[in-house]
Amino acid sequence: MTVLLVGTVIFSYGQSSTATYKEDFKPSSVNQQGKVYPQVNSEGCVRAQILAPEAHHVRLDIGGVKYEMTKDEKGLWTGTSAPQDEGFHYYQLNIDGASVPDPGTTYFYGAGRLGSGIEIPAHDEEFYALKDVPHGLVSEKTYFSKLTASWRRCFVYTPPGYEKDLSKRYPVLYLQHGSFEDETGWASQGKADLILDNLIASGKASPMIIVMDNGYAYKPQAVGEAPPAGRPVSIFEDVLIQEIIPMIDGTFRTKADRTNRAIAGLSMGANQTMRIIMNHLDVFSNYGGFSGTSNYPSTDPIDVNSFLNGAFKNGKEVNQKIKVFWLGLGTKEPNPFPGSVGAFKKMLDQQGIAYHYYESEKTAHEWLTWRRCLKEYASKIFK
Amino acid sequence: MTVLLVGTVIFSYGQSSTATYKEDFKPSSVNQQGKVYPQVNSEGCVRAQILAPEAHHVRLDIGGVKYEMTKDEKGLWTGTSAPQDEGFHYYQLNIDGASVPDPGTTYFYGAGRLGSGIEIPAHDEEFYALKDVPHGLVSEKTYFSKLTASWRRCFVYTPPGYEKDLSKRYPVLYLQHGSFEDETGWASQGKADLILDNLIASGKASPMIIVMDNGYAYKPQAVGEAPPAGRPVSIFEDVLIQEIIPMIDGTFRTKADRTNRAIAGLSMGANQTMRIIMNHLDVFSNYGGFSGTSNYPSTDPIDVNSFLNGAFKNGKEVNQKIKVFWLGLGTKEPNPFPGSVGAFKKMLDQQGIAYHYYESEKTAHEWLTWRRCLKEYASKIFK
Repeated sequence: MTVLLVGTVIFSYGQSSTATYKEDFKPSSVNQQGKVYPQVNSEGCVRAQILAPEAHHVRLDIGGVKYEMTKDEKGLWTGTSAPQDEGFHYYQLNIDGASVPDPGTTYFYGAGRLGSGIEIPAHDEEFYALKDVPHGLVSEKTYFSKLTASWRRCFVYTPPGYEKDLSKRYPVLYLQHGSFEDETGWASQGKADLILDNLIASGKASPMIIVMDNGYAYKPQAVGEAPPAGRPVSIFEDVLIQEIIPMIDGTFRTKADRTNRAIAGLSMGANQTMRIIMNHLDVFSNYGGFSGTSNYPSTDPIDVNSFLNGAFKNGKEVNQKIKVFWLGLGTKEPNPFPGSVGAFKKMLDQQGIAYHYYESEKTAHEWLTWRRCLKEYASKIFK
Repeated sequence: MTVLLVGTVIFSYGQSSTATYKEDFKPSSVNQQGKVYPQVNSEGCVRAQILAPEAHHVRLDIGGVKYEMTKDEKGLWTGTSAPQDEGFHYYQLNIDGASVPDPGTTYFYGAGRLGSGIEIPAHDEEFYALKDVPHGLVSEKTYFSKLTASWRRCFVYTPPGYEKDLSKRYPVLYLQHGSFEDETGWASQGKADLILDNLIASGKASPMIIVMDNGYAYKPQAVGEAPPAGRPVSIFEDVLIQEIIPMIDGTFRTKADRTNRAIAGLSMGANQTMRIIMNHLDVFSNYGGFSGTSNYPSTDPIDVNSFLNGAFKNGKEVNQKIKVFWLGLGTKEPNPFPGSVGAFKKMLDQQGIAYHYYESEKTAHEWLTWRRCLKEYASKIFK
């Protein structure tokens, strides 16, 4: 039996039970201007609402967990989720079997599509808040890639002051997204620009340029050629080294040498960028792996002779070449991430390779983990 | 009776009749990556598709006209519109009474919300196509407005070469959106960056900076103060003159004088910017009104003594002060636009004020009209 308290409402909860919610719901910070729903309460519950008078089955779907919504006499459906982790989550509505974005939110590219997002206020959200500090610019750069025979796009963060002192040059961080995400992620749900603005304002990070490109890149298929069997082979490494870096160095006032270049990525991007730096120690001198390593998805002990063609065999040389070797992981990440990163760390320990290891408290394989990783990593490089 | 031809399909058409379509549908150019629907055929018909197995009534809604969709045995709904005008249109799907974005498209801010868009290829689309020419940058600039007590944002186009010759300064066009749109419109569905890239590459326009800000700006409401009765009073003019222009001149390498400043806008933006230039002839020397004038929505003859405080009374002075006075309109625009712009032109004629007048063939109050207007207007200014 449930007691109905003043200021609380009973809704169906998850798939079956009923629950009460703390009735201090506020509009999500990433709603479209003027949109009152979705809302979030102080327990991290998400409440969505949509007018669908003719519908007979509407659900709120956050991270694959579906919450039943209920209809009032005007055809307005309302539903509330269980408490969510602090930070950003992708979600959608399901209206009579159709999975659609919630018309109340702004949209974010993830899970292979532009969809709704919700922001659960985090206790440490100040580090990515829009504050009264000098702000850098985020620029959209369109360029033609000969290797992929296609137009590509990247977003480039230039730090506050970039437009003022035109003689100054800056180090560059190449920062990659995860699988089924794209070049928009880091400057949108990643809040990379605000994180750097705040770090630079407080003197915790050196002013730097950040390049956020798309990690998917494939050879063009010749006319009449049969499509390749299985997964196409990524040529992102070639695109980055042969096309993106020269284009960035030719467009922005960069310090164009290995000591002033860092590379980092999240999940698939962590895997990709580790391979890239180990193949190009002449190009980069700092690595950041956020929730990922190149041995993914294996959790087995790493054979240092064969892994990445023996790139970690000579631990002393790795220590000499890589100034900052940085790994981060959320404490709530599912397998195989902890096992896989754990096996990688064990190998580094055995090889005597120095590294930083950071754990994001109470976050899973999601953007608050990666915002925190960027904050920590960006504070260490180019010093 | 309808004859079913090979290669054609019969669908319900508009609200009632049936029709056949030319079966040469192709995915819309503004779809999300990899999304096959919506599609457009060579007649300008739009075909949408959505999986909604439990739904019983799904419609495609383009510009308020609703087209019934039909369901197959797998729960996939398909519907096709009547031929649409060339260019860009906002649209949405309606699933059992819920109006939602189509999950197949990218999203555009218009009609007061982020929603789906569709691109009907235009016979003259080359002028806004992504081509192998040097490309400028579009930067997102966040700034705090003291007048509105809020964070605001603008997008700034800097032309190709801006990053190369650091001694060069550029003229600036301030370019405004229409009602229920925002600062994202011109560089997204407006394709302002591509239009300028192409014009500059062909030598038809001078390299310029374009600033695209949000035309909605209001005084903050004091704590405890009652909300104003009726519509709040816009303070965009003050924000532009006192905050945006100094911020732009302080951030970018502008030529900061009236001869090197132009202002233009579409619809509501045309109305706003005409008032602004006539109040600030010391700040701007070029005006562009795309589908709008400040006498809107009136179609009555203009009383030159009272209109905009007599700003057009002295035609000779207006001719001296405004180098390019430019007006544009689509031939399919609904009332009161033709009548209102017509009355305004008559006043200019009577006052002996020189102006350019352009008509966009076979387009209505939509973005292809405004893309064409920008192309024509940008070719005339700063010469």
